[in-house]
Amino acid sequence: MAEETSDNCVFIGGKPFMNYVTGVVMQFTTKKATEVLLKARGKFISRAVDVAEVATKRFMKGQAEVKDIRIDSEEFENKEGKQVRVSTIEILIGKK
Amino acid sequence: MAEETSDNCVFIGGKPFMNYVTGVVMQFTTKKATEVLLKARGKFISRAVDVAEVATKRFMKGQAEVKDIRIDSEEFENKEGKQVRVSTIEILIGKK
Repeated sequence: MAEETSDNCVFIGGKPFMNYVTGVVMQFTTKKATEVLLKARGKFISRAVDVAEVATKRFMKGQAEVKDIRIDSEEFENKEGKQVRVSTIEILIGKK
Repeated sequence: MAEETSDNCVFIGGKPFMNYVTGVVMQFTTKKATEVLLKARGKFISRAVDVAEVATKRFMKGQAEVKDIRIDSEEFENKEGKQVRVSTIEILIGKK
């Protein structure tokens, strides 16, 4: 449903917003996870924060909360061989 | 230079990216701040992360680091009287 889901990890991309929120909630409910890690890069970082906020404050209010947030950078070579830097975020959501 | 600067706080908006990076660096150098708080809402959250990464890993490498990151939501009424939720981020950068 969400872009990619493995090991309680949800990668945020360009799919419909609610897919990701549902993906997070299902990890906790159906898969009985105690923690879910949201990951995003570049422009999808804002979206990852939206997903975390909506999941913890609306759908899992009182049951889950943001436990940790980390930001970092990744460097890679683009198609033109130019070195490019992109920011990343990891948001750890855990059961209360 | 940056959108708004007060009390060692830099609000990230739609101005040229380097304005914000320079704004952060100047708080530390010219204004002798020990901490600078980056704030952003909605789509500018990704940009705030970029500013934090470029400031700490390029311009102030070894001198400053991300100390804390918080996300939250703000609710407000838009022009049509509809209740709208927007995500916010605060990134605290401190001297090493």
